[in-house]
Amino acid sequence: MEFRLIDRIRERTAQGRDDVRLGIGDDAALLAVPEGQELAVTIDTLVEGVHFPRDTAPADIGWKSLAVNLSDLAAMGASPAWALLALTLPKAQSADAIQAFIDGFAEGFAQLAQPHRLALVGGDTTSGPLTISVAVHGFVPPGKALTRAGAKVGDVVLVTGTLGDAAAGLYLLQHGGRVEAGDAPRDYLVGRLNRPTPRLAAGVALRDRANACLDISDGLLADLGHICEESSVGAEIDSVLLPRSSALLGLFDETSTRDFALSGGDDYELCFTVPSTRVADVQADLARLGCGATRIGRIVEGSGVRVREADGSWLEPARQGWDHFAA
Amino acid sequence: MEFRLIDRIRERTAQGRDDVRLGIGDDAALLAVPEGQELAVTIDTLVEGVHFPRDTAPADIGWKSLAVNLSDLAAMGASPAWALLALTLPKAQSADAIQAFIDGFAEGFAQLAQPHRLALVGGDTTSGPLTISVAVHGFVPPGKALTRAGAKVGDVVLVTGTLGDAAAGLYLLQHGGRVEAGDAPRDYLVGRLNRPTPRLAAGVALRDRANACLDISDGLLADLGHICEESSVGAEIDSVLLPRSSALLGLFDETSTRDFALSGGDDYELCFTVPSTRVADVQADLARLGCGATRIGRIVEGSGVRVREADGSWLEPARQGWDHFAA
Repeated sequence: MEFRLIDRIRERTAQGRDDVRLGIGDDAALLAVPEGQELAVTIDTLVEGVHFPRDTAPADIGWKSLAVNLSDLAAMGASPAWALLALTLPKAQSADAIQAFIDGFAEGFAQLAQPHRLALVGGDTTSGPLTISVAVHGFVPPGKALTRAGAKVGDVVLVTGTLGDAAAGLYLLQHGGRVEAGDAPRDYLVGRLNRPTPRLAAGVALRDRANACLDISDGLLADLGHICEESSVGAEIDSVLLPRSSALLGLFDETSTRDFALSGGDDYELCFTVPSTRVADVQADLARLGCGATRIGRIVEGSGVRVREADGSWLEPARQGWDHFAA
Repeated sequence: MEFRLIDRIRERTAQGRDDVRLGIGDDAALLAVPEGQELAVTIDTLVEGVHFPRDTAPADIGWKSLAVNLSDLAAMGASPAWALLALTLPKAQSADAIQAFIDGFAEGFAQLAQPHRLALVGGDTTSGPLTISVAVHGFVPPGKALTRAGAKVGDVVLVTGTLGDAAAGLYLLQHGGRVEAGDAPRDYLVGRLNRPTPRLAAGVALRDRANACLDISDGLLADLGHICEESSVGAEIDSVLLPRSSALLGLFDETSTRDFALSGGDDYELCFTVPSTRVADVQADLARLGCGATRIGRIVEGSGVRVREADGSWLEPARQGWDHFAA
């Protein structure tokens, strides 16, 4: 354990949680899970140049490294409590550069951690290529967690927010010459890439109501495919129903926005299925929580995800979603 | 989450733990902490070329990445339960090479996990420079955990096992020409580097008995220094009392073995302090557990660690232990 750097992050993310019996500074943290709660636990890694562009601001990296993990808790309907951080930093940098990175990283991490009262309870810093692993722990009452396995034939498929923004933001960064810096739609899309919002309140609201749920990290087609596989069902979605932001629609043509929405990763919206009788209630509740939810299709017998075009024909998407490792 | 590679590891580390309500395969694992237990949680990262030599066998990497974390649980007196794994693998390798690495890694990981009934409950694989972060979770009754903060003036300082072996093993790997391959003492020392044994049973036995405890990952001087700092005390140790293996003593001169024992990292033995009245009992119990414990000094008023030589003079060690990041 390396405490000096982790301490600087901890100072910025201090939380008065009485379930943290012993925080950072010993060989392990000591934590008390509240009675009547199960623990939801997940870990995700971001690698520079793979999961975020090389010139991403440290604060955005701090935010995103936590956000992608909180999004997994959201997808389970769990409430966040604690995080562990493993940070590998290039040795070649000067001490000042490392300090500046840490301060920026801590700022972004804390901006997302604080409103959720998430406490950083452990960490490790090592030298090497820039890599960030975060493990998060959340609480969920026994039997109430949302999984990928419960979708039923006849369920309606919904997604929170809008789709394709993050992939479009990445496209703009990689083809920066096409759009002027400071452009509001561009900034919005890049912000969706760098500062995704984990849908934690929506996840909790979906307990007892959604039959299946996950977060969209690899693209709608790939991730909805996971629900189909785990639930032994198929899904049909209508491309005209895919929710797309005005920023996305303003900068790209119809085919591009559809492809971004179907296959773009990194949106971290929730995709979930509910019985048709509950759709209106769920939509009203999620609208109150500020993220909205759009019906995009339905669960059918069979397997796999099919996409219907406006003219009723079936689409053969060129890309079936992101796979960082296989890419 | 990337399940195909993680699944291959999980298949080899399957455990019938009924506290794992939902294992690998969804957005998060669902876990139940037994009533009357607190959770001890820690994370550590190994980077190729920093924490293990570049040609280390995948099985050794798998073992060690878990061992360094279990050692932290041992130092708290906690019993291991669950692990998360974040594995970053070079993309340049062929699919066959990745598969071979994964199979070897899983074998070593499982060899250590299985006797402790530790379940792998989550993971992530990404592409990038070889980096392994493992987070482990263990149980400890409330108030029974061992910390670094309880050492008292008059306590006896003890260590489990022998010291300096891992650092000597690394030295031999880095200066391989000096000793023939297949040499038993050399293999022993390299094995101590590559396959450290977390002192889990000893840690549990020290609950209620040790006033302070940690594991020696950065070297005795540095780590005992942490106990002194956290406990607001000093420590005096006698270099002639440092337990050294016959393999170490057979291959190196007295000064080298002393320096390895004082400052070498990666031994993952426990260093702990107990009131003098309990020393004999503790030593007898740890001997029964097969690791033994040697008294090496005492806790005194003041601060910092001082080392007394055989002639009664005080040593000024050239190296104050490893610091991977500052190195």
